[in-house]
Amino acid sequence: MKKEIVLTGITTTGTPHLGNYVGAIRPAIQASQMDNVESFYFLADYHALVKTHDPERFRQSTLEVAATWLALGLDTDKSIFYRQTDIPEIMELAWILTCIAAKGLLNRAHAYKALVAENEKKGPGDPDKGISMGLFCYPVLMAADILMFKANKVPVGKDQIQHLEMTRDMAGRFNHIYGETFVLPKAVTDKQSAVLSGLDGRKMSKSYDNTIPLFAPEKKLRKLIMKIKTNSQRPEEPKETAGCTLFEIYQAFADEAQVDQIRQRYAAGIGWGEMKQIVFEHLNSLLSEPRRKYQDLIADPTHIEKVLKEGAEKARAQSIPYLSEIRKKIGVQAIGR
Amino acid sequence: MKKEIVLTGITTTGTPHLGNYVGAIRPAIQASQMDNVESFYFLADYHALVKTHDPERFRQSTLEVAATWLALGLDTDKSIFYRQTDIPEIMELAWILTCIAAKGLLNRAHAYKALVAENEKKGPGDPDKGISMGLFCYPVLMAADILMFKANKVPVGKDQIQHLEMTRDMAGRFNHIYGETFVLPKAVTDKQSAVLSGLDGRKMSKSYDNTIPLFAPEKKLRKLIMKIKTNSQRPEEPKETAGCTLFEIYQAFADEAQVDQIRQRYAAGIGWGEMKQIVFEHLNSLLSEPRRKYQDLIADPTHIEKVLKEGAEKARAQSIPYLSEIRKKIGVQAIGR
Repeated sequence: MKKEIVLTGITTTGTPHLGNYVGAIRPAIQASQMDNVESFYFLADYHALVKTHDPERFRQSTLEVAATWLALGLDTDKSIFYRQTDIPEIMELAWILTCIAAKGLLNRAHAYKALVAENEKKGPGDPDKGISMGLFCYPVLMAADILMFKANKVPVGKDQIQHLEMTRDMAGRFNHIYGETFVLPKAVTDKQSAVLSGLDGRKMSKSYDNTIPLFAPEKKLRKLIMKIKTNSQRPEEPKETAGCTLFEIYQAFADEAQVDQIRQRYAAGIGWGEMKQIVFEHLNSLLSEPRRKYQDLIADPTHIEKVLKEGAEKARAQSIPYLSEIRKKIGVQAIGR
Repeated sequence: MKKEIVLTGITTTGTPHLGNYVGAIRPAIQASQMDNVESFYFLADYHALVKTHDPERFRQSTLEVAATWLALGLDTDKSIFYRQTDIPEIMELAWILTCIAAKGLLNRAHAYKALVAENEKKGPGDPDKGISMGLFCYPVLMAADILMFKANKVPVGKDQIQHLEMTRDMAGRFNHIYGETFVLPKAVTDKQSAVLSGLDGRKMSKSYDNTIPLFAPEKKLRKLIMKIKTNSQRPEEPKETAGCTLFEIYQAFADEAQVDQIRQRYAAGIGWGEMKQIVFEHLNSLLSEPRRKYQDLIADPTHIEKVLKEGAEKARAQSIPYLSEIRKKIGVQAIGR
């Protein structure tokens, strides 16, 4: 039986934090170790170009994110790990899909509409002010990413479900005009996708500036954990685990037995200072190995490059012949062959 | 001194007619024989995909248009003649420019606005009804076509001047962000671009269905010329050359001495039937040689393919290193190199 193809896009902007790890990176890496799927992981750097026009940051972010995934154990033998900018076939497919997609489809994209709504709130003027074509056309490139590798499943956040619907729309339209060509992908959203709280108790997110970077050095990690907001209960008072950020973070990284033990300590009364120390030590011991690996990788970018080039070769072994098939369907055929 | 670079895009939809030849093809081919310019000619087949979703027609049109230009004497030793779909670098550059272009810029494109206006005239409903993303994004691809080969001059019809301004806008914006990279091209429009009248006296145009195909077989050519609209003057009456379609067509293909002679025949009175016969014989003798060449080319598409592949090689010898330079500017650089 043919293996199911799962394709995961990796944002290359920003420094990965604990929340990213628990919510997206860890489940994706676990999936890469499964035997019954064929997994593709790609660094979506041409998507990052929509937001980042700083070449140094662009390059550095891609490097850091690649190192992060490798340090955390992405299995590049079992999966195909590549950089979008290494696969020119994706860009060509994006134009082909551009000719298939209705403009009205893109007009309805939530991300675009949200920006228009913001502009309109500011008063009269151009509702498209400050909006780039990159942002507007983003779902077409995403469709090309997905359709290029015949993905059956695409793990996404809820905000991306609509983009998968658009991908299916373009794929279906192409198939209708030119005959069966594309696989219609399904969005996979974790029903209870793990969300971690940040330093201030709100969802851990770059936009709240409340994150704990995954590979913060030991000292910095301690400092941040000590800053996590708690209530004003005294050490000996029994405490609730529900709604406690410290407990939640610990739980996200510990096994059941460990969590049970801490739950008992909460009931018996545990000082916030001690709990912070426990969380720090636990995280630090878990993260020190990947952190070291990460530092080694960052110090030796040629290794990362080698891994990505190998991934690109494996990916292009599929994208090159498939694009040539797609080109034939639309009539781009070497004349006289 | 560096030669000026002139880039000419060739529409691959529709069968070329006498009007296309006089207005666009002939001046372009004459330019290809000049020594002081470096000329690029490309078959814009990925633009055709915006309009044509019929693979057979798509393929056949490209073939016919390529054969037309070769039969008419395009000098492929002095110029670079290639097919857009053979240059993947253009597609990649198109995405890079997509990330640079403001959506507002594209909103203002005349061709797009005209379609919106048509929809709005039809009453309430989606103003983008029936408009594809390909049409909306067309000017970005055109910018990529032009900037990819550092064109200084681009001969265009008046309707395309705005697209050249958009190209300059994107190029300037990129240069501003990333440093001098792109050459800002100039639109070249013939001040008195030759326009030919069609069978009914209106401008010869596919949309009026009044054209004379360039390579119509002899019998068909005669039949069409016999159909050209004239006034009801009797044979012996002196006639005006101004506003006379027959005279205009003859003039477009004859030298001064020949034209003077016909002018005298008009003044002395010439029968429309006789003039039609003169026009037919003149055109037929001029076109029979290219028509034969065209038929030979169409019968041997492998030769066309060979010419186009050679052109693509020459073009890619420039586009590959240049795209790699552009990629470096935006931060897409092989990590660790």
